[in-house]
This record gives sequence, structure tokens and C-alpha cells, in this order.
Amino acid sequence: MHNNNYSGLWLDHHRVADLKETFNLKVSGFSTDHRVIASAIRELATGLKEMAGAELTQSDSDKATRTVGIEKDLSIKPEGYAVKGTNEGLEIRALDERGVLYGAFALLRAIACGTDIAEIEESAAPSNPLRMMNHWDNMDGSIERGYSGESFFFGNDDMIIDDRTRAYARFMASIAINGIVINNVNVKGAATYLITDRFFAGVKELSEIFADYGIKLYLSLNFAAPIELGGLEGCDPLDEAVIGWWKNKIKEVYDNLPDFGGFLVKADSEGRPGPFTYGRTQADGANMLADIIKPYGGIIIWRCFVYNCTQDWRDTKTDRARAGYDYFKPQDGDYHENVILQIKNGPMDFQIREPISPLLGGLTRTNQMLEVQIAQEYTGHQIDLCYLIPLFKEVLDFHTYSGAEQDTVADYVSGRTMGNTLGGMAAVINTGNDFNWTGNDLAAANLYGFGRLAYDTTLSAEQIAREWIAQTFALDKEHEDILADMLLRSREVYEKYTCPLGIGWMVYPGTHYGPSIDGYEYSRWGTYHRADHLGLGVDRSDKGTGYARQYYGRNAEMYNDPRTCPEELLLFFHHIPYTWELKTGKTLIQHIYDSHFEGYDEAEEIAGAWDKLKDVIPADAFERVKERFELQLDNAREWRDQVNSYFYRKSGIEDEKGRTIY
Amino acid sequence: MHNNNYSGLWLDHHRVADLKETFNLKVSGFSTDHRVIASAIRELATGLKEMAGAELTQSDSDKATRTVGIEKDLSIKPEGYAVKGTNEGLEIRALDERGVLYGAFALLRAIACGTDIAEIEESAAPSNPLRMMNHWDNMDGSIERGYSGESFFFGNDDMIIDDRTRAYARFMASIAINGIVINNVNVKGAATYLITDRFFAGVKELSEIFADYGIKLYLSLNFAAPIELGGLEGCDPLDEAVIGWWKNKIKEVYDNLPDFGGFLVKADSEGRPGPFTYGRTQADGANMLADIIKPYGGIIIWRCFVYNCTQDWRDTKTDRARAGYDYFKPQDGDYHENVILQIKNGPMDFQIREPISPLLGGLTRTNQMLEVQIAQEYTGHQIDLCYLIPLFKEVLDFHTYSGAEQDTVADYVSGRTMGNTLGGMAAVINTGNDFNWTGNDLAAANLYGFGRLAYDTTLSAEQIAREWIAQTFALDKEHEDILADMLLRSREVYEKYTCPLGIGWMVYPGTHYGPSIDGYEYSRWGTYHRADHLGLGVDRSDKGTGYARQYYGRNAEMYNDPRTCPEELLLFFHHIPYTWELKTGKTLIQHIYDSHFEGYDEAEEIAGAWDKLKDVIPADAFERVKERFELQLDNAREWRDQVNSYFYRKSGIEDEKGRTIY
Repeated sequence: MHNNNYSGLWLDHHRVADLKETFNLKVSGFSTDHRVIASAIRELATGLKEMAGAELTQSDSDKATRTVGIEKDLSIKPEGYAVKGTNEGLEIRALDERGVLYGAFALLRAIACGTDIAEIEESAAPSNPLRMMNHWDNMDGSIERGYSGESFFFGNDDMIIDDRTRAYARFMASIAINGIVINNVNVKGAATYLITDRFFAGVKELSEIFADYGIKLYLSLNFAAPIELGGLEGCDPLDEAVIGWWKNKIKEVYDNLPDFGGFLVKADSEGRPGPFTYGRTQADGANMLADIIKPYGGIIIWRCFVYNCTQDWRDTKTDRARAGYDYFKPQDGDYHENVILQIKNGPMDFQIREPISPLLGGLTRTNQMLEVQIAQEYTGHQIDLCYLIPLFKEVLDFHTYSGAEQDTVADYVSGRTMGNTLGGMAAVINTGNDFNWTGNDLAAANLYGFGRLAYDTTLSAEQIAREWIAQTFALDKEHEDILADMLLRSREVYEKYTCPLGIGWMVYPGTHYGPSIDGYEYSRWGTYHRADHLGLGVDRSDKGTGYARQYYGRNAEMYNDPRTCPEELLLFFHHIPYTWELKTGKTLIQHIYDSHFEGYDEAEEIAGAWDKLKDVIPADAFERVKERFELQLDNAREWRDQVNSYFYRKSGIEDEKGRTIY
Repeated sequence: MHNNNYSGLWLDHHRVADLKETFNLKVSGFSTDHRVIASAIRELATGLKEMAGAELTQSDSDKATRTVGIEKDLSIKPEGYAVKGTNEGLEIRALDERGVLYGAFALLRAIACGTDIAEIEESAAPSNPLRMMNHWDNMDGSIERGYSGESFFFGNDDMIIDDRTRAYARFMASIAINGIVINNVNVKGAATYLITDRFFAGVKELSEIFADYGIKLYLSLNFAAPIELGGLEGCDPLDEAVIGWWKNKIKEVYDNLPDFGGFLVKADSEGRPGPFTYGRTQADGANMLADIIKPYGGIIIWRCFVYNCTQDWRDTKTDRARAGYDYFKPQDGDYHENVILQIKNGPMDFQIREPISPLLGGLTRTNQMLEVQIAQEYTGHQIDLCYLIPLFKEVLDFHTYSGAEQDTVADYVSGRTMGNTLGGMAAVINTGNDFNWTGNDLAAANLYGFGRLAYDTTLSAEQIAREWIAQTFALDKEHEDILADMLLRSREVYEKYTCPLGIGWMVYPGTHYGPSIDGYEYSRWGTYHRADHLGLGVDRSDKGTGYARQYYGRNAEMYNDPRTCPEELLLFFHHIPYTWELKTGKTLIQHIYDSHFEGYDEAEEIAGAWDKLKDVIPADAFERVKERFELQLDNAREWRDQVNSYFYRKSGIEDEKGRTIY
């Protein structure tokens, strides 16, 4: 499946075996007419053909030497599968159609990764009920925090549906994504009209394409729609006229889009309208919509990104990090059962290092979904290499010490801890209409990896990286090792040359690429490092803002004390003197210098490693990535020199190693 | 002359006398049909009627009790006038039509300022041959560095000509402006086509309106026009094909616009094309155009804003301040006689305090024009009150100590020193299509003041302020004193709460409004303060970049030594420890703290003074300005607190007075 306008990503189907065989398809318990089963069969046929030169035939063929069996199995969990290869052929067992489709992709993945067909054996069930992508695509074609071209869903205030749409749906299904929000959470202008006749036909067409791949379509919703579309004077969630308007509107939505998944809502944040305007709670707003959408089987996903974005930098008591927990914790249990609170991984905003949001597992009677960002807003704009799966793993594996037996974030968002069925993971996606979909070809590892991890949170970052490499580039072991190592080191390297020890925010305001140490220091965004001539960091202990106490006891104690606080988060939780001795024996200031020199040097090493792959990576992809590395090194150099110069000028403390600081 | 869309500025013609008389017009030596004389008569008639209730009649009227005489006088200098009022009437003597028009406005000004008609007596001749306004208006209607709405010349890539155009020309004539460049020096897109059939009709219509008021129309030119319009491969000024193209083009321009003044050119700067691309000098480029335009009486005004705008902040040897002199001084004498070099007042870019450009008077064999900026790019965006005439006076009065008898900047740019006839002053204008033309009503004082000062560089800032107040608001002495004092203090107050001691550039990047102390510190623009924990400032002495030596001996000595350097420029020329003792006995750091606290307090005083004028200023103007003052106080507070906090955090030195620093 090659196309001139876009790459095939990890479904590029390199030839890895030469079977020259014909497989007979045997399906039992499922209808081959079912759109999802049909997709699974089509994928199997294409994949076997392209990767192994084998034919799949649906009519018993005399030529057939083996079979592909698809069988309903009530012992398998929803959306799970068991696949197996034998000398007789391949089999997929599943409870439902999605399970079959995911099983088909699992078989193809195993083949692409070089597993001998007869040795394939894998069974899996999703860790998370909901595995979602959030597009921040605007209807003018721009993408908020997009670094891969324009939207492939929208342009010129209209919808775009073409062969790229279907290709995208395939990619998502291959990583078991089952829900996609197509429009930006900041809903404005034409996007408000996505739930009107103006766009129903297009949204329906898109949802049908998604449905072929077992994906539900969701929309971001404008809480002020009753005003903007309905001509009402307000959008108070307790106002009968507003409720009536939504009842009619949601009925209209489902009349047009019977498979519609539900709404994602950003309310009362960064200038968006919401319940606060009317003195109502977020729960009032969410529950109102949830009650109306419930009869249709829809859900309401409510983002917890509520904070004061007009803070005075002089104010050291207000702490943006506290805001989510302070607001939502007292409402724990107030949200109706088809509401999910979508919670960012950290309490701030997708920095390269943050503590885990204390809301995750802090809420114990509320559906919750983990939100991460694979769009590299603060992590290098898909110019700099930054493989994010290790970061997501840290979040999932974090023990909340809530007292529950299953107390990690993964346990909470999956529903295991609370026994609930609505939860999961969502990613702010990193795609656009660039040829390679993700700006940097290597950033596709984050796209792939998020889906895989959301489906199976026990996978390791390395395993995911190797799967992605094998399917994308089909490298030999030696070269796969090189690329896997590049990916696995990249996040730490990015962290080293950027913001030290969890402090975050030293980015250029607005764009969030490149350094500006004081860029957010005197701003209204609650994003400060508080550096002076003696030290830096934000005191969030109970002597400071008290944020550390939002965690359960054991974690609270750990974070509250600079001697026990994990050092990679030291400056997030504490204001520390430059002369403070770290566990390595280095002073804080020396650590800043060292890590920045090392970070640049290691970025050079990674860029150099890429050159070793010149002969095994397709030339066009090689060159695209090489150009990115050149830009990354410029960026890393600026970060290194600006951070070091800033703290040298401020502290007056010399680098022990006498390197050049400006 | 009232209109709902725009104010009448200083030509609002308050009723100040009650003559109820009729004046007979007597004109000798001029034709009343001449467009400029006709304008002068119209202005006199309107002004006498509106300010004094008097009639002006052109036919001998029996009712007439007095006369207005207009008389040619060969003893008067070009564009000069002598006006006089007696019991018999008013008279204007002049050599030329512009002189008559300026004389008419002088009479009306005197009346508006409350001079008894019988006591009017004034003669004047222009200090500067050229007195120009430079619009940075783009054809899409935006204005580069515009803070007063959109362009009234352009919109939607087309020209706008309406009654506002004529009103604008009147205002300009009333302050003796004789040349206007209507389009942005960064010529792109549609603006390149201003010298083609697409816009000739519109430009001609505009130039005719200007001509009625004695104003020549000029255009900014795209040096790459031979490529963009002519389809040539290059724009090398020594290429015969390029020269031939310009010959045809300039003939075409004058065929369509016989009164056209000439071109303003920004070349090889900030991404604009120019002679450097072809290894040619700026003189090669300017002279090529000048030779072609000379037969038509046109001139070429060449901006000296050439510097390396991709500097590495780590590089402490390259100095943007040096760039103009380094480049243009060796070319002194190379420019043909109808070329003028237009030189910004300082070596950087319109900061609130800079030394005088060493090119002014440093060039001794080259026509030169002083460029100032009344658009408040770095001086408060016409939100903050900043009366700029005192700054311009400092520039004009600056002794270069070149050895010439007449050695001030005013002497050089006027042509007095070198005996040349092409020179003068140009201002980047602060107008837009806001009702009040200048965003802040009080910013009109800069618009008015620039014209008055360019015509008569001996006027004091206070005299100009009082003239403007009298004509605009017609206040009694007590209230005029209040407003004049506000204006006259405003620049120093703005300086106090913003960048200390000449260092400049601590503005928010891009917008240039509000503080960002490090905003330009790690940039590519050559704009650094070099603050560390011990001190700040840029060493431009001969131990540093050597910029101080670009001045003539006495000034060079003065600037080169921190003990003799004027303290308001200390940090421009020297890197100074925070503990350095200033002439006041204060340390540098204490000065920074004190001046910022004072600056805010004084801004509050000025804002408070405005409230005292509530009953004597028209309500709409009062409210507009009051809103600006509220914004100014927010801005001043941010500047105060950010600058103080920045330097406190960096130096660790406490404020002696123990005030709140964050």
C-alpha cells in the first residue's frame, strides 16, 4: 500500500518471508460481512501477500495448503484475542469483532517482527477500556501544537475525507485505538457547527470509515453552543432552557450519527466558557450532558485542566500545580457513571519531567482517564528526538500508595482498582498531513507506542521500540540495536540539555521550542523557577505551597523532604541552594553545568548513531531525519549555553571543569 | 470641520475671539488659482470664521473693516514667511506658495494660542529643507509598529482615498511637512506594484491631494523590483539590464506622477534584498537609482539601517552599535548629490535612551537626514505617555565636536555645516485610522511636535507642547501648566520605570511592549545587557567593542571613560559593577531600585494630574486618555517589579530602603 502523498508508517509491510502458499479462510461465529471482520480479513490478505507472498482465499481452494481460522471464543475478554501459528496455519480467537481485528494485526506484527509463522502464539486483552487519540485540529486546517503539517481532517472551515482518512484509520486500528476525538478541545468558529446539519454528512462519512476499523468517533464540544448555535442568552447547565436545548441537540446528533461516541469537554480553562460563569460546578456541567447522552450510550469526557491562568508572578502562595486536585478532589463521587475525568499525567502541562498528577488515584470514586501528549509541544516539536514511552511507563507504574491493593496509576485508569468500566488513556496526537505523518519519521514511534502501551500497559518501552523498528524499517539485529538505543536514550538526553531536575518551563513563550530561561518567569501562567543568586526551585513542601501533601502519606513524606525527594524532581518540590550536595556528591550548580554539557554531547552521539544507519534506512527517510538532527543540535547547543550562562551569571559560581560558559 | 470618523486634532479651531468683522483678501505676487495659495486662503477663511467669527471675502466688500494681505517678498527665504497683525488687518509675506500656506497656519496658530490679532508678529524660515513623514503602512491595511488602528492609505491590497486623506494632508501642512512616504520601508507583495499601472491612478490622486498642501509624495521602493516586476534574474545595480529596467520604470513613474518626490530605500537589512547580494556597495545601489531619477528632479533617500541581524549572543566582539559607522563612514563622499542617507538618531533602534549616532556629523561629505520615530515602538505603544520632543531636542543639540564651526546634529542635517541643500528630518509616523489618529490623544503632541521642530529646530519642547495644548484643548493657564508639565516629565518617567542608564532592549521580544529583561539577551539581534551577578552593561570602550571611538575626539574620550561618561548612558558604554558609586553617591544597584520605584510613583502622579483636567477636556477624549493611563500604570508596575526583582535576584543586594522586591 504505497502512496505518493503519505508514507505507510509501520504498516509498510516489508517482505520478510517467502511462503508462496495459499491459505484458506475459515470463519466461525462471526459474519464475514461485518465491517470490522471484513477489515480484518482484508488486512490479513494484504499483509500475508506483501510480507510473505502468500495468498488468502475465502473460497475453499484446492491450492490451499494451510488455513487462517477466525473463531469466536467466549472465554476471551472483550477486545482481546488469542493468536497462534502452527504447521496447519494461523488462527485468531476472539470474543468480538474488534478482538478479531486486533488479532489480525497481532499476527501481522509477529510476522513483521520475524517470528516464524509456526511459532506465533500470543494472547492479549486490553489493559484499558478506552484507548483514545485527541486531535487538536482546527477547521481552518491548522493544528494547535501541531508539528507535522496541516490537519488531514479539516481545511478552509470544511471537512477533508480522502484516501488518507482510511489509511489513518488503519494505522489507529493496528494499535488498537478505539476512540478518536477529531477536533481541537478549544472549540471555536466553524468547529462549533460540527454538531449541525452543516457538517453531519461529513462527520457521518468519517465515522463510517472509523467504524470499519472498530473506532468510535468523538467530538470536542463548545460548552457555549446553546448561545452560539441556539441563540440562548446563556449556557448555565442548570437552566431548563439550556438543558432542553441540549436534549434536542443530542437527539439530533444521534439521529445523524447512531454510532457516535460522545463528547470531550474543556470548560472554564484558558478562556473557554464553562459552568463557573454561572456559579456551577464542573460536575453540574458534566452531569447535565451525561444524563442527556446516556440513553444513547454516549459518554462525557471532562478535562481536568482547570487553573487560574491570570496568576500574578509575585504571588508565591497560589500554585498552579495544586489547582486540579484542590478543585476536583472534593467533588470525588459527584460525577455520574457515564462521565470520565480526563487527567493530564502531571499537574502542570506536559513538561519533560513532572511528578504524577495527584488526582490520578487521588480520586477513588470517579471514572478517570490518563491524558498524555505525543505531540511534542514541550519536548522538541518533533524536531528533537524524544521517545516518550519511558515517560508514560513511569506514570503508569507510579504507586499512589492509596491503600488499595492495586494502587498504580495503571490500575486506577484501567478500572482494575475501582472495578469500573469507563477509563483508559488518551493522547494528544502528533500527526498532520506531512508525508511521514509525524514531522520526524522517528516520532512515529510515539504514535505507535502510545497505542500499544494503552492496550497493554505491561509492555516495556524497549519492546515497543523494537516492534516499531521491525515493522517500520525491518533492520537486522545490529542496526535495530542502534536505533532502539537512540530511542531509549532520547528522553533523558532531551531532559539533560533542557530544564534541570523537574523545574520545567524554561521554554520560549508561545512556541514552546528552544530556551528562554526567564520566558515564563514573570508571566501570568503560574510557571516559575524562582531562581536567584543563591538557588532555584519552587517550594511545594508544606513550608511552601503545600502541594506535596496532595499525595497519599508515603509519597507526600517523600516529596515533602528535599533529602528524600527523588532528585529528578528536586526543583519541582523545593527551592534548593546552588551549593546543595546531590547524591552524586556534585553540587546543584555543578550538576546543572555537567548535565547540560553531557546532554549536548549525547545528542551529538545520537545524531552520529543515525549516520551509521545510512545504508539500511530508505534514503528519503534518512535525509529527513538527518536534517532534524542538525536542527536538534542547534537547539541543544542553545539550551546548553543559555542555561549554563544564565546560572553562571546568576550564581557567579565557576564550572569546576573550566568549560566555556558565556 | 468636524467629522464622526476622526478628530480634528490641533486644527479643531476653538472659538477664542469674537470679531464679527469682515476681512478683504488682497493678494499680490501670487495667483489665487495656485492650488497651494487656494488652500492657504481656504484655511484662513475657515480658521477666522471658526476661531473668531470673522468673514474673509475675496471680492472687495463694503462691509470689510480690515484686510488679509498676501504678498510676495523676495527677501524671505524659501518656504519661510513673515506674518503680522495690525489694526488694519493681517498680512503674510513669503517668497513662495508653501511660505504663504505656512504663514496662514502661523497666523491661525497665533490666534489659537490667544495672541491678540493686532499683536501677531512672527517670521520664520525652515531649519531643514526636507521635513518628512515615513509611513510604515502595508497594503493589507496593517501598520508595522502601528498603535492607532489600521492604515488610512491602504487596505485589502488596495488604496484608500477619502475625506480622511485630505484631512491628513491639512494636518501635515499645518506643521510644514513637505514630503510623505506613504508605504512601509519593508516593501513586499502588492506594495511592489505601487509603481505600476495597477496603482498609478490611485497614487496620482493621492499626490494631487498632497500637492494642494505643498507636500510631495514619495514611495518606499523594493530593490528587487526588477526581479519581481520585470522578470529579470537579478537586481545587481551595476547590471545593464537592471539599469535599463529602472530607466524605463522611473520614466513610467514620472510620466504618471510628474510631481513625484523620489524613493526611500531599505536595502540589505533584516532580510530585505540589496546591493550586497551582488557584492556591490550601498553607494552602488543608491547612485544607480539616483542617476536615473536625477533628470526628473527626484531624490533617493537611503536608510543606513544595515547590520548583522543573525549575531550569536556568545560573540562579544561584534557590536550592532558599530555597524552603521563601520560601513558607511569609509564611503563618505561616494554618494551622488541627489542621494540622502537617512540615519536613525541612535546607533541601535529607537530606544528610550541611546547615544547619538556617530554617523550624524561623522559623515562630512554626504547628504544626511535624521530619522526619528514618533510611533512609540519602544516607548510605550501610545499607551504610555511619552512626549518625545525633549529626546529629539537632545539629538539636534548634540555637539559632534567635528571641528566645524557649526557642529551640532541640527547643523549637519539642516545643511548649514556643509552648505548642502538636501537634508532634514524624517519621522516614522504614529498615525492610523483610530478616531483620534494617534491611539492616545496625547500622542498627537509628538506628531505635531515633530513637524514644528523639523521646521524650526530652535523651538523648545515646552513651547511646542504649549502650542499644541492651546490649539487642541484651549486650556486656561492653570490647566495648560498641568498638561504641559505632564508631557514634559513623561519621557524621563518612562525611562525611569523601564531600562536603566541607556542599556535598552529589556522589552518583550516581537511586540516591544512591556518588560522581558532577558527577552533579547540570548537573541540574534545584537541587543544584550550582559548582566551577571556582579554587574551589567556593554563594554563599548576601547577595551571592549571600541564603539566609543567612533565619535570625534572629545566625545570619544568622554564616552570611553566610565568616570566621564554621562551617567544616563553609562550602561550603554560600560559594564559596571552593581556596587559602582554614581555621582549621586548611590550605588548602581540602589539607583536601579530607586529609579524604578520613583518611575512608577511618578507615573501615578502624572495619571493623577490628568484627573485634574476632567472638567476642561472633552469627555470622550478625557476617558480615552484615562483608560490609557490605567494601562500605563499596569505596565509601569510590571516594569518596576520585574526589573527590580531581576537585579535583586541576580545581585543578591538588598534595597537600602527595604521596599518590596520579589
